[in-house]
Amino acid sequence: MTRQPIALAAALALAFPVSAQEPSEGAPSPNEIVAEASAEEWVVVSADDLLVMTLAPGADGKERKVTIQLMSEPFSQGWVENIRMLARAGWYDGISINRVQDNYVVQWGDPNYDNPEADGTAKPLPESLNAVPEAAYTVDGDAIALSVKLADSERDLALERGEALAGTDETTGIILANGLVDSYSQAALFDNGWPLATDAGDATEGEPATVWPVHCYGMVGVGRNYSPDTGSGAELYTVIGHAPRHLDRNIALVGRIVEGMEHLSSLPRGTGDLGFYTAEEADKRTPILSIRVASDLPQAERPAFEYLSTEGETFARYADARANRRDPFFIVPAGGADICNIPVPVRRVGG
Amino acid sequence: MTRQPIALAAALALAFPVSAQEPSEGAPSPNEIVAEASAEEWVVVSADDLLVMTLAPGADGKERKVTIQLMSEPFSQGWVENIRMLARAGWYDGISINRVQDNYVVQWGDPNYDNPEADGTAKPLPESLNAVPEAAYTVDGDAIALSVKLADSERDLALERGEALAGTDETTGIILANGLVDSYSQAALFDNGWPLATDAGDATEGEPATVWPVHCYGMVGVGRNYSPDTGSGAELYTVIGHAPRHLDRNIALVGRIVEGMEHLSSLPRGTGDLGFYTAEEADKRTPILSIRVASDLPQAERPAFEYLSTEGETFARYADARANRRDPFFIVPAGGADICNIPVPVRRVGG
Repeated sequence: MTRQPIALAAALALAFPVSAQEPSEGAPSPNEIVAEASAEEWVVVSADDLLVMTLAPGADGKERKVTIQLMSEPFSQGWVENIRMLARAGWYDGISINRVQDNYVVQWGDPNYDNPEADGTAKPLPESLNAVPEAAYTVDGDAIALSVKLADSERDLALERGEALAGTDETTGIILANGLVDSYSQAALFDNGWPLATDAGDATEGEPATVWPVHCYGMVGVGRNYSPDTGSGAELYTVIGHAPRHLDRNIALVGRIVEGMEHLSSLPRGTGDLGFYTAEEADKRTPILSIRVASDLPQAERPAFEYLSTEGETFARYADARANRRDPFFIVPAGGADICNIPVPVRRVGG
Repeated sequence: MTRQPIALAAALALAFPVSAQEPSEGAPSPNEIVAEASAEEWVVVSADDLLVMTLAPGADGKERKVTIQLMSEPFSQGWVENIRMLARAGWYDGISINRVQDNYVVQWGDPNYDNPEADGTAKPLPESLNAVPEAAYTVDGDAIALSVKLADSERDLALERGEALAGTDETTGIILANGLVDSYSQAALFDNGWPLATDAGDATEGEPATVWPVHCYGMVGVGRNYSPDTGSGAELYTVIGHAPRHLDRNIALVGRIVEGMEHLSSLPRGTGDLGFYTAEEADKRTPILSIRVASDLPQAERPAFEYLSTEGETFARYADARANRRDPFFIVPAGGADICNIPVPVRRVGG
């Protein structure tokens, strides 16, 4: 299973049942490239970095589980620690999904805290939680080695335009030549399996580059009150629409949904302000039975996931193919891609 | 009502019920700017350009209507004519929603044509439909006057980076200096209420610029078989996830959802290939009772919509505010915006 179906090969090809499922002829599709990756290119996600959220069963009585991969170092670790602490304290058990705003977010937390009809009897938070400063929304560029490489391409607008930024390379230590054109930063890049962006710093002013994770579909963030509050991790949301990149550097990103996204994205939209369920539709709030760190679960219930290394040759070919679709359905390759349209392949292993 | 809630002012502000709904202090939010637009800045959508799709009632027995604004000239008119023809022939009545792929599309059409278990008894199409060539995916840049202007800004990355393209201005007739940085084209722009992109042509080769509409959330397109087929308009889809911009210039865009998007985006995801509902889940296919051109409806049932002129001063301020959020929730303004994060404001009028 993947964060989102990789099976886009035939894309919108409709026509006859058989053709929609035939392997493509000619150039491989992005998912066909991923399928060719060697075992060594897949990186195991630590069970300490997986959360299993169990929702109350749906109208059909079926189990609904959502698995979240927590953000890796050096990003957002103060909040990530809080989330593990809250999960281990059982704090999340019995909270609910209180907000579903179309083309924006699904948000869960204590219904007595975060909805307009709250009665003020909010659940107390553990005193040991970290209070994380806004400075932690970004990290210094030299804390990581960014290295996505797009394969050679006849017509790769992203690469060409990214190259114009290569002058800052040596001063920042960031390989901007391989970055993607980005509307929200100087360049978007991948590192260690995560989509990132950078401001490239300002060499003439001696300002080092900063780097931050970005709000793509399925990313998980920390709800907060007005600045300087940065949220504890008790209120979480995931993106269910077009990437709201204006939230980058304004809210902490702490992970992404790697399985069960459809249980969140297809929930009925709330009709209150900001998509909160109103008191009249309180029955639409989906109860969250529990959230557990996977490493705390019995071995038999513990899910296991791997992501495709973003530093390997296969990811480079995959990213290039996402930016330049050459599989049979396509006529005009785009010549570039938005970082959120190059989802990092993630798969379940071990059944 | 709008294509998507404009009420993003307090964004993810959670906290106390009151604060989430208070008007922002200081800089106005994008929706507050839109609320200040004068009546003359709103453009009426012709009733010939509105389609009303009535779905079978949901589990709660409530009516479900979706309104689509058809694409304006000079884009995609061959397909748009087909769609009006199919609606007027009653061809769409009794078809269904057959595909819901998470973070991608919802698609409707004849279930005996477009799903893997089709039995081959497809509904015949009217013989009078246009066969539209692939060349119609784009238009010549000089067919329209692109003119979005972002207001002055302390820190507007989009504008600064767009300005680097200004050299091609006179040769192409397109005001690239005011375009948005785009991962999929030389610049993204608005015209006549629609989000567009351009390749800017190649002045040195004497190639004129071409312009095309782009796949943002809620845009409606024409399903097709493999090239050179471009589809008739009998199979339609809308985007329910991150903008799949790689489909630009590869599929015809014929409009956008202006009301009722939530009836499509929250449908249960199909578990078959590409998100099609399998034969076992055929009961999940939502029946479409009818699709009518609004001008064919009795006056009392006819919806009316207006969009905010993309050539006016208010839209420029709104676009700038979307690119540089300065309302109280935000700490760091992005300094740029993806064209799909500047949804053109659309509102229902007359109840």
